[in-house]
Amino acid sequence: MKNRIIALTGVPGSGKTTVLKKALSMASNVSVVNFADVMLGVGEELGLGSDHDAIRKQPLDVQKELQKKAAKKIAKDASGITIVDTHATIKTKDGYLPGLPQWVLSVLNPSTIVIVEASSKDINLRRQMDKSRSRDDDGEVGIELHQELNRAISLAYAAASGATVKIIINEQNKLEEASKTLLDLLGGN
Amino acid sequence: MKNRIIALTGVPGSGKTTVLKKALSMASNVSVVNFADVMLGVGEELGLGSDHDAIRKQPLDVQKELQKKAAKKIAKDASGITIVDTHATIKTKDGYLPGLPQWVLSVLNPSTIVIVEASSKDINLRRQMDKSRSRDDDGEVGIELHQELNRAISLAYAAASGATVKIIINEQNKLEEASKTLLDLLGGN
Amino acid sequence: MKNRIIALTGVPGSGKTTVLKKALSMASNVSVVNFADVMLGVGEELGLGSDHDAIRKQPLDVQKELQKKAAKKIAKDASGITIVDTHATIKTKDGYLPGLPQWVLSVLNPSTIVIVEASSKDINLRRQMDKSRSRDDDGEVGIELHQELNRAISLAYAAASGATVKIIINEQNKLEEASKTLLDLLGGN
Repeated sequence: MKNRIIALTGVPGSGKTTVLKKALSMASNVSVVNFADVMLGVGEELGLGSDHDAIRKQPLDVQKELQKKAAKKIAKDASGITIVDTHATIKTKDGYLPGLPQWVLSVLNPSTIVIVEASSKDINLRRQMDKSRSRDDDGEVGIELHQELNRAISLAYAAASGATVKIIINEQNKLEEASKTLLDLLGGN
Repeated sequence: MKNRIIALTGVPGSGKTTVLKKALSMASNVSVVNFADVMLGVGEELGLGSDHDAIRKQPLDVQKELQKKAAKKIAKDASGITIVDTHATIKTKDGYLPGLPQWVLSVLNPSTIVIVEASSKDINLRRQMDKSRSRDDDGEVGIELHQELNRAISLAYAAASGATVKIIINEQNKLEEASKTLLDLLGGN
Repeated sequence: MKNRIIALTGVPGSGKTTVLKKALSMASNVSVVNFADVMLGVGEELGLGSDHDAIRKQPLDVQKELQKKAAKKIAKDASGITIVDTHATIKTKDGYLPGLPQWVLSVLNPSTIVIVEASSKDINLRRQMDKSRSRDDDGEVGIELHQELNRAISLAYAAASGATVKIIINEQNKLEEASKTLLDLLGGN
């Protein structure tokens, strides 16, 4: 079977990581990489800093170069099924920033873009309880908007790359179901 | 007048074919091709099978090649107005698959992407009555989602190609109106 | 600091121009160009006509060429922050036409696409009061649809270009707030 890359996305609090972990506990031959971590690794090698903040402070064209290099590294290392933990868009003060701009997408060439979604109410509650991470205080309306925009951009990624878009609804108390859907996508092992 | 290609899309049960037939009965100098059929024809010539299932079982890169060849054939044969009967996205077990990925879109280069839409309630009822075709049992919520995603991806097709996006609402008992809108787009003949 | 281009969009009646003017009154080192005006200027130089209607009647490939030349001119002249007053999509009889198709977007290469939005009710009222300009009579439903499609296509622009998408809600009687958000984006001067 051919190597496959799956881009896994979801707004903070969607339960993306929880769904992923649960699915991985039942899967084999699946590797996971975090896009931002790979970017950081590439940046460190180039002496550009050793934490995410240092990378984010680089000029935009440097960041773009790092994104490209990270995508190339992931694509080169990919063997079997590789899940790339990333974002459809990232909310910044300048607006929603695409996580898979064309120069990343064309290199990664994912077969599927997964969007883990949950109700904005559930996400809002999860964010309020998770005070350890300084998460945005978007409110339910802001969360709903972010999820709507993520759907739209994921379809644009699909149009450009031919990838399928799989929406996984992570309902409260139905983690089993959501992770099963992800597992099926991985080949149901 | 220059040759024009119009991509006609709509979820199963939207009434796309009915609207098209009605409009064609009033139009002249318009030809219609079904994208999947052209793909199948190309596949048959290459000895890859003689039905749609055989084509769908080909490896992804073979399918991609067939899509490209089908698009080239349609673009080459186009004369006057050509309507390409196709899908904005196709619902598969791996998620929503783009019907006009970049390598198809750039070859077809449609002037307009038409989306025939109907209320999810009407579509659901039509699907339930049409038991001859094994249509998805998405329910109204699933149909609404599919139509929402089709809008989003159609705008992405427009951004990439410059095509206009025309939404035709096919309301219950207003077939005349919907087909008239399509006819107007064809040049009002 | 590097030159930056910001694409400013919003449906007719969204208050785009009012928000812009208010923000400009507080900003320095910001220039504004209207995309359609630059296109007209380029067309005039080529002897293609001297008003917007004359340009719109040119064959599509001529219009496309003018769009490209206008984008190149804007990108070449850009110094400091340049706001390009344009449209995400334009409603035409053939459907929604993209304002930043790929051949324009790749040349302009905006850092941010701003969408000025308002409630469809407010926009509808503003359009009814502004009889001087022959604005579309879309009704609230049509306005809501147009704004929804503009969001979707803006995300597609972001996917292709890496631009951020900033949504500015221009609520009735909160012009100050909306223009402040735009000002912040300009660097908060």
